[in-house]
Amino acid sequence: MNAAGTLSITADRLLGRLRALGQIGRDSEGRLTRLAASEADKAGRDAVAGWMEAAGLEVVVDRIGNLFGLWRGGEAGLAPVMVGSHIDTVIDAGILDGCYGVLAGLEAVETLRDAGIVPPRSVVVAAFTNEEGVRYAPDMMGSLVYAGGLPVETALASVGTDGTVLGEELARIGYAGAQAPGFLTPHAYVELHIEQGPVLEREGLRIGAVENLQGISWQRVTIEGIANHAGTTPMAMRRDAGLAAARVVTFLRDRVARGNAPTVATVGCMSFAPNAINVIPSRAVFTVDLRDPDEARLREEEQALASWLKHLEAEEGVTISVERLARFAPVAFDQGIVGMVERAVSRRGLSARRMTSGAGHDAQMMARICPTAMIFVPSIDGISHNPRECTAEADLVAGANVLLDTLGQLSAASARC
Amino acid sequence: MNAAGTLSITADRLLGRLRALGQIGRDSEGRLTRLAASEADKAGRDAVAGWMEAAGLEVVVDRIGNLFGLWRGGEAGLAPVMVGSHIDTVIDAGILDGCYGVLAGLEAVETLRDAGIVPPRSVVVAAFTNEEGVRYAPDMMGSLVYAGGLPVETALASVGTDGTVLGEELARIGYAGAQAPGFLTPHAYVELHIEQGPVLEREGLRIGAVENLQGISWQRVTIEGIANHAGTTPMAMRRDAGLAAARVVTFLRDRVARGNAPTVATVGCMSFAPNAINVIPSRAVFTVDLRDPDEARLREEEQALASWLKHLEAEEGVTISVERLARFAPVAFDQGIVGMVERAVSRRGLSARRMTSGAGHDAQMMARICPTAMIFVPSIDGISHNPRECTAEADLVAGANVLLDTLGQLSAASARC
Repeated sequence: MNAAGTLSITADRLLGRLRALGQIGRDSEGRLTRLAASEADKAGRDAVAGWMEAAGLEVVVDRIGNLFGLWRGGEAGLAPVMVGSHIDTVIDAGILDGCYGVLAGLEAVETLRDAGIVPPRSVVVAAFTNEEGVRYAPDMMGSLVYAGGLPVETALASVGTDGTVLGEELARIGYAGAQAPGFLTPHAYVELHIEQGPVLEREGLRIGAVENLQGISWQRVTIEGIANHAGTTPMAMRRDAGLAAARVVTFLRDRVARGNAPTVATVGCMSFAPNAINVIPSRAVFTVDLRDPDEARLREEEQALASWLKHLEAEEGVTISVERLARFAPVAFDQGIVGMVERAVSRRGLSARRMTSGAGHDAQMMARICPTAMIFVPSIDGISHNPRECTAEADLVAGANVLLDTLGQLSAASARC
Repeated sequence: MNAAGTLSITADRLLGRLRALGQIGRDSEGRLTRLAASEADKAGRDAVAGWMEAAGLEVVVDRIGNLFGLWRGGEAGLAPVMVGSHIDTVIDAGILDGCYGVLAGLEAVETLRDAGIVPPRSVVVAAFTNEEGVRYAPDMMGSLVYAGGLPVETALASVGTDGTVLGEELARIGYAGAQAPGFLTPHAYVELHIEQGPVLEREGLRIGAVENLQGISWQRVTIEGIANHAGTTPMAMRRDAGLAAARVVTFLRDRVARGNAPTVATVGCMSFAPNAINVIPSRAVFTVDLRDPDEARLREEEQALASWLKHLEAEEGVTISVERLARFAPVAFDQGIVGMVERAVSRRGLSARRMTSGAGHDAQMMARICPTAMIFVPSIDGISHNPRECTAEADLVAGANVLLDTLGQLSAASARC
């Protein structure tokens, strides 16, 4: 057991910074929006960089704008431990998504420093650029570039929804750094995050030890039928694209509900054409979001959908085409770090469960280059990407302490965890 | 059997006028649009009024702009027989909807006149104002006002989709007449129309003897669920408004398909909110169009839907509200006239069936004040309200001859048909 096991973070400092960062980027109606590389993002970065420097960390920025606070360890030859997340937000956001992971990482470092500990390994607190992907695509861009999954030049050339170019905007706000992304290969990466789902709260647990991240399959389905008069066309003679779309929605729900697996399926977008009250829809366009932590099962779900669409074409006399919008394989996190998280939870007398991340996170990119895991704390009502996003303060503190313990152990170990 | 039974209309005259009227109101791309009381409508009315006058009919316009061609019969005390339809169109219309009934009515009158017949009853050829209801609401306005279902002042004050006032527009185009709507109470009204559906074509029949008109129930359904993350919300914890909407669509189809009745049910409009690929829909709004020729059964279908919505509220944890958009009771036409139509069909060696009108027509308004029926001819592929609207010329001629025979018999009879 390392020394950090007996330490605890300073709750007021962490919560105060969360609130302070949460005030940066509010509009005249009080809505919080810090899109990547915007003026609000610059102000948020300035605050975080200022706190890093005040805590004695060396601030480093790489070419894609990832912001790092580097605390040098005792043994220069060892790979550093990285903790962090992101501080960019969606439009009309809550204050916790991402920021909690960055500021708790900083808090854990300060707690170790304040205790006079100098671990063998360096520790890096990271705030990755453009995790949300609202202004520039793709999301999780900074960590993806850092992990070598996207050339930095390609990312910098991204054109935003507002017509801006990311590279120009980063330079404008003073966060186009000199370091090559990936300049440090971490010994391990740990990301603390709010769950953004209802599972921990429902089960009355304080901590999630996140052992994997769902694979994601996004498809857009277009069904072509024949528009006809709603009054004069007998039911048996219809080629109703809207009906066929509805049959897909209920098929997905009924299949997944029967399956008893952690698969989730969502139809979030739907449109009918011509969208007239007295015209049978000639076209329905909708999206299918399928997720599963198991790649084989995710493929099976995709195939079941494809077969059902074939069946519908014959059954309803419609034509169906499918466009793939995104596909990410599931990510398995490092069992060693997950075990460390569980032991820290146990030592602190907290309740926990192993779980799957349903959302995407920077950790899934970092898992490409180093052992990685995540720690979740409960989200009240499962709400996120919303001003009502909230976690009990006691849970925020508990999560930061588990991160502290895990970081302390990872940074103390000179061998592979 | 009256003399008209041996007569036939002049095909070229009828088809030539249909084509000529179909050229009036085309835009630079060739699209046909003659909205009620527009410049194009004025040009169409001028053409029809000109043909009426040339055929020796007296042109009369009432206060709501209904255009009548009056042919005086031999016995002044008898109520006149009215035939007709409308000449206003939807946007990007075909040339037959409405115009066929007006011009075939005129053709039948001219055929009788050319044969030297002077029937005891007067005959009136009617072109009702604003049947389509595209520019001013409600549709079937001219016949509704004529039948006493809507005060003429209210109708004239209607504000169009373009901000115009119907009364001012009618005055501007010179069709604000002096006669009070309803100034003549017909002995009978007969409307010849394209089917606008696929039934006659599918069954290989030439003529539909229309004995009733479906009741129509239009409702807008709003389902409120809870927006949540598509990746982090387990299926069992969802309140998915989109799924609930899909269950309504499939419920309606499956119920109606099982029912073996002429009921039709259509969900033509559908929208999800927030309509994002990775967010469970918090709201679904859609329309339900239910039609049935039997009022009791239509009510039963409405009640079945209401019960299903109650069931869904409990089953899916959603909140559902329903707004009634329109409700018309079914209309039963006059069996005497329907029988006359069938006998005319039989004498001419044509094939026919009794049928229900799935669409609304001026005839449903006229049925309030006099014995009424309709005659349908096949629509190729069931298409209407579309430039591809088409009926074989032989069928157009056959329908006009059946109208001729029916008109001949009705106008010859001094007693109740």
